[in-house]
Amino acid sequence: MRDMCYYYSQLGTDERSEFLIHMATSLSTNHQAVQELIQQKPQADTNSVDLDAQLLIWEDRLRHAVQPPHHWVFSQVSRLSGGVKFLVDMRQDLLSTLFSKTLDPSNSAALKTLDSTLRELLSLWFTVGLLNVQRITWESPCNMLQKVSEYEAVHPVRNWTDLKRRVGPYRRCFIFTHSCMPKEPLVVLHIFLTNEIPDSMAKILQTSRSSSIDETSVSKDSEDPSLINTAIFYSITSTQKGLQGIELGNYLIKKVVHEMKAEFPSMSQFSTLSPIPGFVKWLNGMMARAQRGDAHIFTETEVNALQIFLEVDSSPEVYERLRKLFTTNGWIEELDVVETLEAPLMRLCAYYLFTEKRRNYTLDSVANFHLKNGAVMWRINWLADRSPRGLANSCGIMVNYRYFLEECECNSRTYLETMKVIASDTVTFLAKAAEDIIKKSPSDPGSSPLLPRSPSPPVITITPDSKI
Amino acid sequence: MRDMCYYYSQLGTDERSEFLIHMATSLSTNHQAVQELIQQKPQADTNSVDLDAQLLIWEDRLRHAVQPPHHWVFSQVSRLSGGVKFLVDMRQDLLSTLFSKTLDPSNSAALKTLDSTLRELLSLWFTVGLLNVQRITWESPCNMLQKVSEYEAVHPVRNWTDLKRRVGPYRRCFIFTHSCMPKEPLVVLHIFLTNEIPDSMAKILQTSRSSSIDETSVSKDSEDPSLINTAIFYSITSTQKGLQGIELGNYLIKKVVHEMKAEFPSMSQFSTLSPIPGFVKWLNGMMARAQRGDAHIFTETEVNALQIFLEVDSSPEVYERLRKLFTTNGWIEELDVVETLEAPLMRLCAYYLFTEKRRNYTLDSVANFHLKNGAVMWRINWLADRSPRGLANSCGIMVNYRYFLEECECNSRTYLETMKVIASDTVTFLAKAAEDIIKKSPSDPGSSPLLPRSPSPPVITITPDSKI
Amino acid sequence: MRDMCYYYSQLGTDERSEFLIHMATSLSTNHQAVQELIQQKPQADTNSVDLDAQLLIWEDRLRHAVQPPHHWVFSQVSRLSGGVKFLVDMRQDLLSTLFSKTLDPSNSAALKTLDSTLRELLSLWFTVGLLNVQRITWESPCNMLQKVSEYEAVHPVRNWTDLKRRVGPYRRCFIFTHSCMPKEPLVVLHIFLTNEIPDSMAKILQTSRSSSIDETSVSKDSEDPSLINTAIFYSITSTQKGLQGIELGNYLIKKVVHEMKAEFPSMSQFSTLSPIPGFVKWLNGMMARAQRGDAHIFTETEVNALQIFLEVDSSPEVYERLRKLFTTNGWIEELDVVETLEAPLMRLCAYYLFTEKRRNYTLDSVANFHLKNGAVMWRINWLADRSPRGLANSCGIMVNYRYFLEECECNSRTYLETMKVIASDTVTFLAKAAEDIIKKSPSDPGSSPLLPRSPSPPVITITPDSKI
Amino acid sequence: MRDMCYYYSQLGTDERSEFLIHMATSLSTNHQAVQELIQQKPQADTNSVDLDAQLLIWEDRLRHAVQPPHHWVFSQVSRLSGGVKFLVDMRQDLLSTLFSKTLDPSNSAALKTLDSTLRELLSLWFTVGLLNVQRITWESPCNMLQKVSEYEAVHPVRNWTDLKRRVGPYRRCFIFTHSCMPKEPLVVLHIFLTNEIPDSMAKILQTSRSSSIDETSVSKDSEDPSLINTAIFYSITSTQKGLQGIELGNYLIKKVVHEMKAEFPSMSQFSTLSPIPGFVKWLNGMMARAQRGDAHIFTETEVNALQIFLEVDSSPEVYERLRKLFTTNGWIEELDVVETLEAPLMRLCAYYLFTEKRRNYTLDSVANFHLKNGAVMWRINWLADRSPRGLANSCGIMVNYRYFLEECECNSRTYLETMKVIASDTVTFLAKAAEDIIKKSPSDPGSSPLLPRSPSPPVITITPDSKI
Repeated sequence: MRDMCYYYSQLGTDERSEFLIHMATSLSTNHQAVQELIQQKPQADTNSVDLDAQLLIWEDRLRHAVQPPHHWVFSQVSRLSGGVKFLVDMRQDLLSTLFSKTLDPSNSAALKTLDSTLRELLSLWFTVGLLNVQRITWESPCNMLQKVSEYEAVHPVRNWTDLKRRVGPYRRCFIFTHSCMPKEPLVVLHIFLTNEIPDSMAKILQTSRSSSIDETSVSKDSEDPSLINTAIFYSITSTQKGLQGIELGNYLIKKVVHEMKAEFPSMSQFSTLSPIPGFVKWLNGMMARAQRGDAHIFTETEVNALQIFLEVDSSPEVYERLRKLFTTNGWIEELDVVETLEAPLMRLCAYYLFTEKRRNYTLDSVANFHLKNGAVMWRINWLADRSPRGLANSCGIMVNYRYFLEECECNSRTYLETMKVIASDTVTFLAKAAEDIIKKSPSDPGSSPLLPRSPSPPVITITPDSKI
Repeated sequence: MRDMCYYYSQLGTDERSEFLIHMATSLSTNHQAVQELIQQKPQADTNSVDLDAQLLIWEDRLRHAVQPPHHWVFSQVSRLSGGVKFLVDMRQDLLSTLFSKTLDPSNSAALKTLDSTLRELLSLWFTVGLLNVQRITWESPCNMLQKVSEYEAVHPVRNWTDLKRRVGPYRRCFIFTHSCMPKEPLVVLHIFLTNEIPDSMAKILQTSRSSSIDETSVSKDSEDPSLINTAIFYSITSTQKGLQGIELGNYLIKKVVHEMKAEFPSMSQFSTLSPIPGFVKWLNGMMARAQRGDAHIFTETEVNALQIFLEVDSSPEVYERLRKLFTTNGWIEELDVVETLEAPLMRLCAYYLFTEKRRNYTLDSVANFHLKNGAVMWRINWLADRSPRGLANSCGIMVNYRYFLEECECNSRTYLETMKVIASDTVTFLAKAAEDIIKKSPSDPGSSPLLPRSPSPPVITITPDSKI
Repeated sequence: MRDMCYYYSQLGTDERSEFLIHMATSLSTNHQAVQELIQQKPQADTNSVDLDAQLLIWEDRLRHAVQPPHHWVFSQVSRLSGGVKFLVDMRQDLLSTLFSKTLDPSNSAALKTLDSTLRELLSLWFTVGLLNVQRITWESPCNMLQKVSEYEAVHPVRNWTDLKRRVGPYRRCFIFTHSCMPKEPLVVLHIFLTNEIPDSMAKILQTSRSSSIDETSVSKDSEDPSLINTAIFYSITSTQKGLQGIELGNYLIKKVVHEMKAEFPSMSQFSTLSPIPGFVKWLNGMMARAQRGDAHIFTETEVNALQIFLEVDSSPEVYERLRKLFTTNGWIEELDVVETLEAPLMRLCAYYLFTEKRRNYTLDSVANFHLKNGAVMWRINWLADRSPRGLANSCGIMVNYRYFLEECECNSRTYLETMKVIASDTVTFLAKAAEDIIKKSPSDPGSSPLLPRSPSPPVITITPDSKI
Repeated sequence: MRDMCYYYSQLGTDERSEFLIHMATSLSTNHQAVQELIQQKPQADTNSVDLDAQLLIWEDRLRHAVQPPHHWVFSQVSRLSGGVKFLVDMRQDLLSTLFSKTLDPSNSAALKTLDSTLRELLSLWFTVGLLNVQRITWESPCNMLQKVSEYEAVHPVRNWTDLKRRVGPYRRCFIFTHSCMPKEPLVVLHIFLTNEIPDSMAKILQTSRSSSIDETSVSKDSEDPSLINTAIFYSITSTQKGLQGIELGNYLIKKVVHEMKAEFPSMSQFSTLSPIPGFVKWLNGMMARAQRGDAHIFTETEVNALQIFLEVDSSPEVYERLRKLFTTNGWIEELDVVETLEAPLMRLCAYYLFTEKRRNYTLDSVANFHLKNGAVMWRINWLADRSPRGLANSCGIMVNYRYFLEECECNSRTYLETMKVIASDTVTFLAKAAEDIIKKSPSDPGSSPLLPRSPSPPVITITPDSKI
């Protein structure tokens, strides 16, 4: 088994795919055996007590028969030292094979079964009791800080001084590790401690809370607790692609909220300042439809104003122009355009977040993640993230999801059961306003045709993308 | 789920049994759903590629259908903090319910399915990567030492001075813990460091290696490495009844052998000095048969000598007398009897260990454990354990199982595949000698009727009892 | 130097004394060199600036000349690993040599100088920054708990169950260690957590706070914080005789009070329940004088009552009888005697504690220790300690010294500067009552002749005995 | 006392100087009291035993009288938490006050006494038993690695990648900390593991031992032990100026040699590759004398060759030109010059290291440090350090001091007692060659007039500069 692992780890990407396909097909359930077992099902001619017992035994055998042999292989690998980590990495390869464009469709079903087996096993191992929360400070091991820095993809770390600030005063950084791989952060969560819910990243990343903070000091003593009543989760990153679909982030948030309350008993507000990864993509789809005359998204006044500032002659050209504009970041400097776009984009973004669904859940992966955790969609913020990434994904708009501790569990259940998005009045109002305009559209605005058929989000994923 | 666990933990023994029976029956597989699914099996009328994919999907659904709902319950419980420990304890209750005399047989099959599910899950969690080996010394936490003391059942710890010696110079004590329950030793292993393979416990328990050893010193510096080339595993205890059937002890032995080699590069001999828990029980069965004239176990000469020393008139009375004698420990003082019994008991013990089988494996659970690990049945030692327990279980006989590192893996495979016991020439010779006498018996000595039908060793157990 | 230490450690008691005397005399200050240096003192014939500088240089040389060579030896030894611990142990030998009855008086002065050098060095090393406070629980290393048990001399630990209770719920045990000897507790402090100041040891040692406390649980979670507002220091032990005269206990008390306040913010009372080691000794002296008619200690009524209960005819016989009575513990069972003695003994004990002085400080070493720390002599408790030791030392009487945090520093200064004992009204009243009776004595009750000339308390001791 | 410390820490540089001067003068020894005590010296008119005792008591009083009051102040400060660190920092201020050019000479003697007191106390606290050796790796706390990076002055760390390499494979980094200030490295030692004694820094700083070394791996497993038999101490830095004169570095070297031998039993060579901080300064002095015709330092041939390559007409101009040349680093590119200078500079450098003395010890502080530790001056290496600092201090020359373990102690004693430098034949030969040429000088080459009167190295320093 150890040899097999070593052999696999030496393979290149394509060979690994082949290996996995081979494993999926050759170590799959023996159809014949299942068929034979089914025909041996105990029949009702025996007395009922006996029949029950025989049925249970037969089901037990059936259970083993339908268990594919690769299940056994995986559980053997897990018994090696380093085995669980190996399987996490193997699943990453498996997922990329599964969503590879060159995959022969005839192998897809077998690979999905393989993935399903692996995911179930991993979700047993990555259970809360085996996960450890750790606070990261400037006194943490250097290799850990290096990883925290490298994994940070939401708001990239510029250098060690930047990193030191992110684990310094008025900041908290927590990681989740697993007992099997104690040196590997699975989830990294960054928190900003303040006294109001910020409406832009600038307030978080560039702020030194006061000029008196000594840069060399990392002790929390240099924090003034009276300035702290709000915790902002401004970055949460899942680092292991191989754990896709296995929820870890919400546990971390809950544990960390608990720790924050313990450290600051007067802490009263918990909120995120979150990106909206899919807004521009969706908006482009809407504008394409609007351009074709298939949808209304702006008011007449807005279209007129945009025609002037964008110096175009017709409404279709407005959409054409805007789509082009959003491929670069330059428009942010044209104050007229920015001002004219604020109202319609905020409105449309609210609609995107609040109303758009996929398989009944909120289309936006980050929104879905926080709503499932029981958060409230609280406020949408214009130009909150002026970084290239922020502009490209969401025209710079960000959203606060608030965690009201007493209501989280109830909210979460409501969302999971009724798919109803819980949002503040402001957000709801904006979304309704957008809906009214869209409703007037000539064609039916049913959400499914709207959906850009994205090839990437895998079918098996219930949880969101790793970057939130 | 947390409430359910709390509720369960408050229950008494009988109520727990009821709870488990209820769980086993009401949360069992839905026979109806399985039946319906079976009828939906994709048929060959579609094209073959599609059929394959559909078969896989159908099998996937079948797999979920035959998975009983309690599987889901257990995996949810495992997600609670302390959940895995809760399940280990619950399985202990489950096993005692399953083997309870008052169990309604109609519930047995359902309970076995419940146990099977739980055991499979536990064996996934109690995987090597999550187990930690720790050395215990006099500087270890007191609560840990208290547990090591309380769990020791092979050679009970008399007091704290005794305990201190067992973790002191020329001794090693290792424990296995699990990441989920770091303060709970799962397996405890005691080692004695010496320069020859001892033939009695007295050499191990009562020896201070030299008078110059300062009782207050626990540092290994007070050991003279030149006196050490042999490690004797003289006690190995599995502490969690709920982990019955999940092998942990052999991993501990392997890891510990590795550590011993690292600490003492010149270490060349690894052996146990092990009890023989079932010998007297088996012997009594044999003597009952001999008394009835159904078997030969002693030679004529031996019977005659025993008649004299036991002051009885006939051969049946010898067996009668001996069985009575073995219920107390007094015979150990009667030197004539002791001397006369040595040869026949040693011979019969070798036969018991080497030849007697149950379901093809060695009848004696300790022997079975070490043989599966790849050890060699090396030497049988007369009056090696004069403690009441030692006399009651095995007339004071003990056995050394030796671990020859290079051969362990091969031996283990041989035993598991061919059921052939690997033993030294001496042991083999003794066993053959006993066999020759027994073979002369009037009735057929087939092993199954010999077997005392013990109610306790559960059917599902592959691994041995917790005490070895 | 290392050889010297090894050589010394191999010596027997007498040889060590010889070694120390040799060291004290042969490595003492060179009188001749000092004399010569004195004669080289710079004279006023040079100009004043130069003279000043020359004086400083001369004083520097004088400082080195009067520094005895053993100072250098000690500081070299301290540089060895384990050196500081060696010096602590050496000082213990030195003190016992110094107070040995067989010491040739001509060596006394030299030994005192040696001790003085050593004490000064030790007091530099045993400075607060190098001392560490540690809480001891049942999860602490076993060797540490063993030491805590063995060093406990105030209220001896009976067995491991007893020890477990003393570090369990409603108890705290703290130790001081030094960075040079991290495995050696220097001071051990036991605390009882309750909601009133107890008047007897029984309440402390025998209480399980509630029947629901699980004996196997050591977590503080099994404490009900609402039942805790009082911390009783019921045992404080200095373990190193070689550190006599170097105050550690008061630092520990201060640090621990601080930790208690942090753990229980509502903690409002800090008190001891302390022994009175010298009371009976002093009382015997008083009774001897009373017997001779040199002092009054009881009232007429009391003497009469005692004559009846003790069945003697005259007042002198009362004292005779009482002194004999106090050599055993039987009187505690004679209720009449006990009742009759309560008032006079309580009164006399208050007088002993409050009024009796030695070199201006309170005669009782424990009282002196707590008064120096700023505590208040708060309440005297009849039959608070019925153990043999308690009866033998103080007729079972114990005293509470209370620590009022805000007043400690001020009290301490007052006591050190004015020698005034700060006591509660009750104690003061009792002491005055005793004084009134004693004052009526025929002879002058000056305290010095009263004092039993004890050979043991060394002159150099400023701090109290190790047991408080 | 705490207030005093806080007050002091708030002061500016000049105010601190004033404070220290005030402390030195106002808290100095009471001359009057000393004088009076001297006059009370016991006279010989009493009997001799008594006289001896009285003398000892008088000396004891004298000892206290000459102890300046600031001794008491310092020892009180040490009792505060953080007090010892405060004193270390205070001594740094004290030394800079003492060597400040603006110091009024009339205060110098008093300040020296103050420093002497402080140094003696610090050397008691910074004793081996309180020092801890720690290995620093990439898994050490980030703040510690940041300090290691910032303190490195011998071969400055360029960035975090550079730092990571210095604590990575084929490297060891050790620090000394003190129990009072566990987060502050006192001495930092960098080691390079190789299989030959390198003759240039390039081999140490730029080498990745093999291309197969994974940059992200810091485990020592990526080292091939068979390539390691030599440990090169290539940087040793004392970080606390306030500990000047208190030897720590040699303890670290000894402890570390011990650890290296334990980790690599086949380690056979220990050597430094050390800078020569004072060579160019000394050389300039020599060249000035040569220019004036007061000394010979080059041979005729050498002078002629230099005249050609330096394009000057006369011998004095050669020296003039060279001194100018050495102020920049450009000459290293002129191969002719470099080649011509090699022989004479290597010779002169050997002379400087081997022959030049100050107060009988080797003039070069680094050389003096290693010779005191018992190392052998083993090899001088041309152009071993081409960094600007290396060129400016020593024309790029470096020297290997080798530690032959068996001979260290003996060498050290020889050097300390006889001042004889122990060097290899090669070094000795070069030094003699230089001496022969210098001896031919017209004027007497006595070393004292040669010495550049450096104001900086303080008189009180026995140990070398902090950078070695």
